[in-house]
Amino acid sequence: MSLPLKPGSTIGILGGGQLGRMLALAGANLGFDIVIYTPEKDAPASRVAAQTFVARYDDETALAAFAEKCAAVTLEFENVPVGALQMIAAAGVPVRPGAEALRVSQDRFAEKTFLTELGLATARYEPIDGPGDLENALLSFRGPGVLKTRREGYDGKGQAWLKSPEEAQAAWNALGDVPCILEAVISFEREISVLVARGVKGETTTWAPPHNVHARGILSRSSVPSGLSKAIEDEARRQAVTLANALGYVGVLALELFVLSDGTLIANEFAPRVHNSGHWTPEACETGQFEQHMRAVAGWPLTATRRLFDAEMINLIGEDGNVDVSRLAPGDKLILYGKRDARPGRKMGHIVRRLKSRTD
Amino acid sequence: MSLPLKPGSTIGILGGGQLGRMLALAGANLGFDIVIYTPEKDAPASRVAAQTFVARYDDETALAAFAEKCAAVTLEFENVPVGALQMIAAAGVPVRPGAEALRVSQDRFAEKTFLTELGLATARYEPIDGPGDLENALLSFRGPGVLKTRREGYDGKGQAWLKSPEEAQAAWNALGDVPCILEAVISFEREISVLVARGVKGETTTWAPPHNVHARGILSRSSVPSGLSKAIEDEARRQAVTLANALGYVGVLALELFVLSDGTLIANEFAPRVHNSGHWTPEACETGQFEQHMRAVAGWPLTATRRLFDAEMINLIGEDGNVDVSRLAPGDKLILYGKRDARPGRKMGHIVRRLKSRTD
Repeated sequence: MSLPLKPGSTIGILGGGQLGRMLALAGANLGFDIVIYTPEKDAPASRVAAQTFVARYDDETALAAFAEKCAAVTLEFENVPVGALQMIAAAGVPVRPGAEALRVSQDRFAEKTFLTELGLATARYEPIDGPGDLENALLSFRGPGVLKTRREGYDGKGQAWLKSPEEAQAAWNALGDVPCILEAVISFEREISVLVARGVKGETTTWAPPHNVHARGILSRSSVPSGLSKAIEDEARRQAVTLANALGYVGVLALELFVLSDGTLIANEFAPRVHNSGHWTPEACETGQFEQHMRAVAGWPLTATRRLFDAEMINLIGEDGNVDVSRLAPGDKLILYGKRDARPGRKMGHIVRRLKSRTD
Repeated sequence: MSLPLKPGSTIGILGGGQLGRMLALAGANLGFDIVIYTPEKDAPASRVAAQTFVARYDDETALAAFAEKCAAVTLEFENVPVGALQMIAAAGVPVRPGAEALRVSQDRFAEKTFLTELGLATARYEPIDGPGDLENALLSFRGPGVLKTRREGYDGKGQAWLKSPEEAQAAWNALGDVPCILEAVISFEREISVLVARGVKGETTTWAPPHNVHARGILSRSSVPSGLSKAIEDEARRQAVTLANALGYVGVLALELFVLSDGTLIANEFAPRVHNSGHWTPEACETGQFEQHMRAVAGWPLTATRRLFDAEMINLIGEDGNVDVSRLAPGDKLILYGKRDARPGRKMGHIVRRLKSRTD
């Protein structure tokens, strides 16, 4: 099973959303059969896959049947229970990335600790287990902080901003009386991310780091080049590679970083999966994140990721997903995820614009 | 139904092979649900589609159920019975391309006649309904000829080469005593093709014509640029547009042409579908043939097809499909079709190499 999978093998994906869909499409192009495991009926990824298991992530019978089908398994979101991965791995099916990367990324405190121990700079942070911890931490920070649940937050959900210790009790209650982390608010110039792929033999490739712009906590736009110096970009790539190596990671991982005005990089968080800020890569690079991830999962050698174009990726969120196709520019590459309802804040699709040719 | 289909609509594809698979993948990327209709179980396209009807092309009940599901229907191969298309159209579902393009392309005599009447030069041809016709035609050609069945030939099947009238009876028997056409053998310098897309409003786009190399009757390699002058390429594109307009065509169509040493173009045949010689377009052009075809089928505006790279496409045929992925060059884009057995002569996948950046 550690040998490269043969063309025509079956790869399983845990999760049925747009990332699973784009992974499934990329895997199919390489000749693989894709099987989806998702608790959700009629999921976007199911409609492009050979088969779907609709079951909960703690359904041992369904997980066993899924594992039986697959020569390797991957995932499209980081909140799959670690137990599900362990069960599949115990059945002798390689799970890439593995349980350890998930365990670390599922807990913001474990994640920040892991990053810090690797020597990556982070904003100051403290674990918070009650309103008293929160007051004390805010006093010691001597400035504002962001309270985040340790588990399950994404797209700005599960977060509260605090300017004063007096807000501690209310913020604690608002997040639901669950273990949290307080992070110092830092003043940064821009946000970037590094997508890194690591293969089964430990080889790594990175893509040019995009400059990411968020609106209301949700990624709105990613663009390359980032506008940063090569030295800063190289350092960002180095940090992502360091992280992937330390995790013994297989697949694509995204490290989000803040860039301070003096060029200092502050690691924010990582996602053990393909990432929205890499959605421009299939159109603008020799190989995109989805294909490279599936190659890594299959134990295939990684391939070239050189950037071929200046590009920007614009997310279509909520009603923006009801695209008037007659109003797109000829060069706009439209990708839609097949979601049934354009709910507010929901990622419905994206547009990639290839600007001038250029390589890095 | 003549309005652009909404994102999320369902598009049906008649046929389940690799062309259907690549159309399905491109359609999914635009947010469409894809439904396949094929007589074959476990077809390559079925494994990337939301649903499959496995039924014969003359199964009226299955065709009605399929039509009921679809907002528009297209096809991946030209030998779908015209009756099936008419039945779907009669149910009020637009079929793109329509029955007329199929009717013409399914009969080599009707096809050559159609091309000739449009003013496109072809090799000399005669309908052949028996060995006597064949002898007479060979005598009047005063040279060798290729006998081809009027219907159902592809990849060099259903063909026989004749040098002398004495071979007439044997050749006629070998092809199975069915209506044929005799074409004069012409001495050409190279083969090219033009892929043209035509939208519901009659707008057309073409791609740069590739130079095609065949081996044993099967396309082996397509490359751009073709090496021909812009004047010749422009004339080839003009002929393909003329043909698409004359057919009232919607979707992508491929016109195959011979180029004589003096630059004269001789139309060989056309395929009312996406085409193997256009498999380099997704990787090397602003928009590839599969996406453009699905846009046309959906009644969406066509988009830009500018070529961005010099490129070559190499077919993987038979055992070549059992690719050793560790031996590919980093820039090789590998596409595999998910076929279960690498039978001799079977198209298993292809590789696209993007060479230097360049536009035309």
